[in-house]
Amino acid sequence: MNPTAILFISCPDQRGLVARIAQFVFENNGNIVHSDHHIDAELGLFLMRVEWELDGFRIPREEIARRFEPLAESLGMQWQIHFSDRRQRIAILVSQYSHCLYDLLLRNAGGELRGEVVLAISNHNDLGPVAERFGIPFHLFPIQPANKREQEEKELELLSSRQIDLVVLARYMQVLSAEFVARYPSRIINIHHSFLPAFAGARPYHQAYERGVKLIGATSHYVTEQLDDGPIIEQDVVRISHRDTVEDLIRKGRDLERVVLARAVRLHLEHRVLPYGKKTAVFD
Amino acid sequence: MNPTAILFISCPDQRGLVARIAQFVFENNGNIVHSDHHIDAELGLFLMRVEWELDGFRIPREEIARRFEPLAESLGMQWQIHFSDRRQRIAILVSQYSHCLYDLLLRNAGGELRGEVVLAISNHNDLGPVAERFGIPFHLFPIQPANKREQEEKELELLSSRQIDLVVLARYMQVLSAEFVARYPSRIINIHHSFLPAFAGARPYHQAYERGVKLIGATSHYVTEQLDDGPIIEQDVVRISHRDTVEDLIRKGRDLERVVLARAVRLHLEHRVLPYGKKTAVFD
Amino acid sequence: MNPTAILFISCPDQRGLVARIAQFVFENNGNIVHSDHHIDAELGLFLMRVEWELDGFRIPREEIARRFEPLAESLGMQWQIHFSDRRQRIAILVSQYSHCLYDLLLRNAGGELRGEVVLAISNHNDLGPVAERFGIPFHLFPIQPANKREQEEKELELLSSRQIDLVVLARYMQVLSAEFVARYPSRIINIHHSFLPAFAGARPYHQAYERGVKLIGATSHYVTEQLDDGPIIEQDVVRISHRDTVEDLIRKGRDLERVVLARAVRLHLEHRVLPYGKKTAVFD
Amino acid sequence: MNPTAILFISCPDQRGLVARIAQFVFENNGNIVHSDHHIDAELGLFLMRVEWELDGFRIPREEIARRFEPLAESLGMQWQIHFSDRRQRIAILVSQYSHCLYDLLLRNAGGELRGEVVLAISNHNDLGPVAERFGIPFHLFPIQPANKREQEEKELELLSSRQIDLVVLARYMQVLSAEFVARYPSRIINIHHSFLPAFAGARPYHQAYERGVKLIGATSHYVTEQLDDGPIIEQDVVRISHRDTVEDLIRKGRDLERVVLARAVRLHLEHRVLPYGKKTAVFD
Repeated sequence: MNPTAILFISCPDQRGLVARIAQFVFENNGNIVHSDHHIDAELGLFLMRVEWELDGFRIPREEIARRFEPLAESLGMQWQIHFSDRRQRIAILVSQYSHCLYDLLLRNAGGELRGEVVLAISNHNDLGPVAERFGIPFHLFPIQPANKREQEEKELELLSSRQIDLVVLARYMQVLSAEFVARYPSRIINIHHSFLPAFAGARPYHQAYERGVKLIGATSHYVTEQLDDGPIIEQDVVRISHRDTVEDLIRKGRDLERVVLARAVRLHLEHRVLPYGKKTAVFD
Repeated sequence: MNPTAILFISCPDQRGLVARIAQFVFENNGNIVHSDHHIDAELGLFLMRVEWELDGFRIPREEIARRFEPLAESLGMQWQIHFSDRRQRIAILVSQYSHCLYDLLLRNAGGELRGEVVLAISNHNDLGPVAERFGIPFHLFPIQPANKREQEEKELELLSSRQIDLVVLARYMQVLSAEFVARYPSRIINIHHSFLPAFAGARPYHQAYERGVKLIGATSHYVTEQLDDGPIIEQDVVRISHRDTVEDLIRKGRDLERVVLARAVRLHLEHRVLPYGKKTAVFD
Repeated sequence: MNPTAILFISCPDQRGLVARIAQFVFENNGNIVHSDHHIDAELGLFLMRVEWELDGFRIPREEIARRFEPLAESLGMQWQIHFSDRRQRIAILVSQYSHCLYDLLLRNAGGELRGEVVLAISNHNDLGPVAERFGIPFHLFPIQPANKREQEEKELELLSSRQIDLVVLARYMQVLSAEFVARYPSRIINIHHSFLPAFAGARPYHQAYERGVKLIGATSHYVTEQLDDGPIIEQDVVRISHRDTVEDLIRKGRDLERVVLARAVRLHLEHRVLPYGKKTAVFD
Repeated sequence: MNPTAILFISCPDQRGLVARIAQFVFENNGNIVHSDHHIDAELGLFLMRVEWELDGFRIPREEIARRFEPLAESLGMQWQIHFSDRRQRIAILVSQYSHCLYDLLLRNAGGELRGEVVLAISNHNDLGPVAERFGIPFHLFPIQPANKREQEEKELELLSSRQIDLVVLARYMQVLSAEFVARYPSRIINIHHSFLPAFAGARPYHQAYERGVKLIGATSHYVTEQLDDGPIIEQDVVRISHRDTVEDLIRKGRDLERVVLARAVRLHLEHRVLPYGKKTAVFD
């Protein structure tokens, strides 16, 4: 696959945005392979993802930002540029459930992710052997109420020193502090084991069982300061019946959680998710 | 199809329940065509549905209840008996949206329901022509805060005089009073246009749009005193994306609502739904 | 909603296509509201849909084609232009099953379709009352092996005289001749009651029952000379079990058929379906 | 969980079957925890699954068969009895794709299966390290046209010597001979990467891509002499679009295959699948 540049744009809607952006690419001899935009009429907001081949593009990649800046400024754009061949560095945070960790490590080993799992962090030592089985360094940071701030500081240092781009909470049972979240805006992905906003908070399968729902869900979202409230990337559901015990829900949910989380991680790594307000535009 | 008897049983779990009940049917020469039970281990509760052919059964149908009573009493059962050839009488309550009403009237006309739509009631006159197109009497009861109690009284009289068995709220935009609900316990089915318990209450599609969910749902449930909180019979979802406006959600939701409501009504009419606590066992 | 122009393009892939097309719109002061393209790398084929507001566009709509032609020619494009406010004229062909006909007539009456059902044609007279109930003229053309060619001729004359744009086979049980099909290329939509290519041909629900599948499907596709083999627009499935009889499959299938057909018709009417080879690109 | 006995019965339909079987259990003080039956009206066939707790049952488990035999004979039953605490011994046959193997080994390690993976067999050595990572013996039997019969003989000896109950083809790319299949009737489960009967045979994802379907599927079935034609246990589908390349289908399919295979294996291990003719009854 040829390397590509991916440009994410968000700005006030106005005439000519698609043409101007496509023109910028074309006049520099870029070949657009994907282009998609969304207009949120209510907010008057224009969101765009455009991807073109770097091969033959006349502007060297390290100068694209500088050359795009004048156009961006004149149109009031917020924007980011990404390159498909820059492998993002991923940290996985886990507690004691192994299924999402295993799933991501298998996809990582199978070359399915456009990124690289660099390390795993946990507040328990149970899953150390899993990470090590795949040659992934495992870091233990036991967290107590008293030492949470301090441990988070150490985690952030580690993430920073290993140049982590994306933090994946693969059933991590600790709530991250607002300070931690602020360090990785739209770069922390969580999997919550319910169809949010139903059953936010603790023990969603137990809540679902109590309520007698006929489907259970899983939700992958960016983490924000407020628990289980960040922009949703992906959701799915599976059918259950009165016959299913809480244990059955947990078992069926595992298969759902890992697929939903993997899809969200994949979409993020391919730069297909543009968060805006409390939502995401997913350009797939 | 041969007429059948359907027995619903709920009682404390104990040894021998299936055998005793099957024995009761067999020793009277009944042929069981469907038999299913569920044990809620947490509550220690045994729930059963058993259906047998009346043809050849030695007890005349009008005496079955009396003959079953001693066994039922000895085992502490709550039970009901139904007959498949007794067509239930259905009243549909609507406001201004026609899609669920049309859907039920078409199924009714096509002979798909094990029951008969007898009348329609509305607090608006918009849908009168729809009902009349299918030859179904339409009754208008405009409801204002001041006359609600009085109008409900009249509705109840009408339902009673027409011997209604099942009340279907097919997008009926009034909250029924506790007194109304108490008259038809587990015999009022509502369709709510969200995946409950998410987005209970007013304008669920607007709520879903605001929250940025990736699936929308519909829920059919028995009506209880508490709004949108009754035992769930059926739920389903459909995928949406950031491209969908509130109007798109409403449109996609319509197709979902009518199917989910129709499935719930069908299950109820075939005596496949046994509510217990806040849940239902669906013996399909 | 402001009226829009929708341009469908297919041509050999080459650099600069998106930019040139966007530029054509922009330099004439058009505001692009939707733009999507697909590159079939195997075929070296570029497919695009671009939609812009006519309001403020400097070229009058009747001249757009002439003004676009030079660019199109220079790039070897096949293309079509459509206008969102031109309501397409629809003919529905049916035999004896009413569910798809009802469904489309209800959507038509509810203003859900970007088009207008102009007439219904059938080889049986059963569904005349349904069409008439909605004020749609119903034309009977009984077909026997001996008179098929002649009857088709008359049907084609009728379609032509009523300026029909789209023919919908809503469970029409006759195979159209190659001549008929050739008159409406990519403008005849069929619903087949299976998950094609499984169970093509007659009695797919019976075939599905015999085979013991665990899901049944429905497929909506453009009609080509070869039976059940045209480009697929939309498919969906529903779960079944060993408990379901053929009659249950037929009943469950009905709900599926009407939704799948309605989705395909909607996508076509909004000019979102671009057939190429044996496939379709669906720009939704 | 208390150990249970599970009885599978198939016989000509007749009056009193449920009662007599329930009676057999009850008069020996068994507590039925699950009981389900199906009548195939077309074949006049009665199929039943009944499960009861061994705890308190008056007949020792090794005598149940002998004691049930007279009743079974008098009613013309074919039957089998299983015990939930007898862990079935599983052999996994694989070629070069690891995803289904990994999936089963993870479920095995996590205690999710009512059975035990005893060994893996392959015609390639690629996946040896995967099996060994989980401590599962890996046996290589390279197969050429010339040595196929001989290698299969050796495989059968191995399976026999290790007392294998269930053979799982987890993307095994060799066709088993009729002789092999005959040795494990209804005890070899395959995963085929299409929605059978569509795209049987080789390269189903390529076939699906060529045909332009909008959903792809996976099918798990018992292996019979005829390729991809055995009784289906479980199927599911996932949505695709024109944007998906063959490689995307393969990737999306992987997630589907492993879940569909795992569900089928689980259902089989819990003795919930009763094959009859070309179909299965799944008592879940």
